[in-house]
Amino acid sequence: MLPIAVDAMGGDRAPGEIVAGAIRAAEELGVPVLLVGRPEAIDAVGGPGPCAVLAASEVIAMDDDAGSSVRRMKDSSLVRAAEAVRDAKASAMVSAGNTGATMGSALLRMGRIKGVARPAVATPIPRPLGGHPMVLLDAGANAECSAAWLVQFAQMGAAFARQRYGIDAPRVAVLSIGEEPGKGNPLVKETWALLDADGGAALTAAGATFVGNLEGRDIMGDEADVIVTDGFTGNVALKTLEGGLKAIVAAIVDAFATTEETRAAAEVLLPALLPLYGRLDPDATGGALLLGVEGVCIISHGSSSADAVVNACRVAADAVEHDLVGSLRVFVY
Amino acid sequence: MLPIAVDAMGGDRAPGEIVAGAIRAAEELGVPVLLVGRPEAIDAVGGPGPCAVLAASEVIAMDDDAGSSVRRMKDSSLVRAAEAVRDAKASAMVSAGNTGATMGSALLRMGRIKGVARPAVATPIPRPLGGHPMVLLDAGANAECSAAWLVQFAQMGAAFARQRYGIDAPRVAVLSIGEEPGKGNPLVKETWALLDADGGAALTAAGATFVGNLEGRDIMGDEADVIVTDGFTGNVALKTLEGGLKAIVAAIVDAFATTEETRAAAEVLLPALLPLYGRLDPDATGGALLLGVEGVCIISHGSSSADAVVNACRVAADAVEHDLVGSLRVFVY
Repeated sequence: MLPIAVDAMGGDRAPGEIVAGAIRAAEELGVPVLLVGRPEAIDAVGGPGPCAVLAASEVIAMDDDAGSSVRRMKDSSLVRAAEAVRDAKASAMVSAGNTGATMGSALLRMGRIKGVARPAVATPIPRPLGGHPMVLLDAGANAECSAAWLVQFAQMGAAFARQRYGIDAPRVAVLSIGEEPGKGNPLVKETWALLDADGGAALTAAGATFVGNLEGRDIMGDEADVIVTDGFTGNVALKTLEGGLKAIVAAIVDAFATTEETRAAAEVLLPALLPLYGRLDPDATGGALLLGVEGVCIISHGSSSADAVVNACRVAADAVEHDLVGSLRVFVY
Repeated sequence: MLPIAVDAMGGDRAPGEIVAGAIRAAEELGVPVLLVGRPEAIDAVGGPGPCAVLAASEVIAMDDDAGSSVRRMKDSSLVRAAEAVRDAKASAMVSAGNTGATMGSALLRMGRIKGVARPAVATPIPRPLGGHPMVLLDAGANAECSAAWLVQFAQMGAAFARQRYGIDAPRVAVLSIGEEPGKGNPLVKETWALLDADGGAALTAAGATFVGNLEGRDIMGDEADVIVTDGFTGNVALKTLEGGLKAIVAAIVDAFATTEETRAAAEVLLPALLPLYGRLDPDATGGALLLGVEGVCIISHGSSSADAVVNACRVAADAVEHDLVGSLRVFVY
């Protein structure tokens, strides 16, 4: 397998945690890893270990404007990582850096899969009660979408759910504000009509099933495997969930610390709560995928730890081995 | 005070819990309550107690089409409740029934406040760590919105936050997918520009402050008091939060029940967790308000208990006493 290009400079905890994760990925997963970034920065945190290094002198900051920085900073770690995939020097790229710039680099350097109108970010949403995650897309690549794009997102999301979670015939829903076809905004209604046409042909062609509209409250439920929406709504839903869970966990931790007695009781409960914590930990899912570009591109959470990088490399290697990109080429018209 | 008209027939637990709540509201809050619905149904659950009864022979079901049922069922409890407010026989209406039909009845019978383009649903989002709720609007009245409407939602939301939570100068944000003015969809960008114009004049005129864009993860945070968005996005965000919290609480309860030891520990923690549970309980907030109609209209959760009805009547009485509707008339241009 060609190496996985890891952006050593991207993320709130870069380069330390990223380099540590890349080294662990190479050692624990047995996959070749190419660290992309400033060699001196990599050396300053202990060196690349068993990983190869691709030098890149520039760094796109977390809050840089995505569009202009990708065009301007041609020797940035992000742009170089995407180039490595394009030039068949790497099989996939992983970054915990600037999300917009990661998408921009992948799109500009790898290009779109022929026939794909727009790439979309597919984010796995963990289910607190267990089971495979729900794939939500678009989680933020396209603030405005057409219904035809959403149909492609549905097809790509289904292919990803099959490859990643082994679901034979993924169930795909449209995110709306009511389950009836007449509910929602014009985009949702039009998408529903396209996905429902000819007995759901657009999805049966992709080996999937259209299950209609679902609501926000169903995102963590089990009535579908994939849920499609425009990138604005998807991003709002994803971050609302993230903020809500964080707030509630903080409040629970507060409650646990009320008295000496509750602190002792909380310690007894900790082992029982750990699996739940593990399921909800964004570091555990391995990050989101940019689907529709000519290569595997993993967008990890900005706060990624070394663990998150290991998991992202695992997801990347899995996507490469199972030819996720090839499976997207097949059914996108 | 004129009585509060309570739709006895609306909600998953109607008429039993609704009638019980109405009676308690009359007794505990000392406000007059008018139960609207089928007298025989009210009698079948023990009668109206100290409440007056306004007979209405029809019932709009939870899943009836909102538009046609409101036009067709002129003797429904919902339409009669809205008429009672219009005809100055009631000061406010409360329903846990069909949300769309509640909005439709209020809009058709009470009419809009002069100058208000569209009424919006304002939903208080509780904060797990305490403090007053965040007012989110529009939570679902208008699936499609213009920027000018969102400016009015911002003004109305500010007036409501001041009246309901005593916030002198409410901070108002726009829900987006990034804090920068350039982020978001065209609606968000245009709304930002309108709210930012002339040093934020649209909101300073309403005694409020525009604090820019916030993201989904900030809905439960404390950087604003009011957050505005279109009814599609608002409804998705609200229900995503609801579903996410429900899923996580279910998973925690599961974890608590793992062993005899964890069950015992959970019992110790229960009293410490109760205040949090109370804050998050949708029955505790008293429901959402339809802002922009010529009267107080409270939309309670479909699952409302008697407690929820008491709280809804409390919020309604408070809005009437403080002339919420009058305060909306003042600054809407």
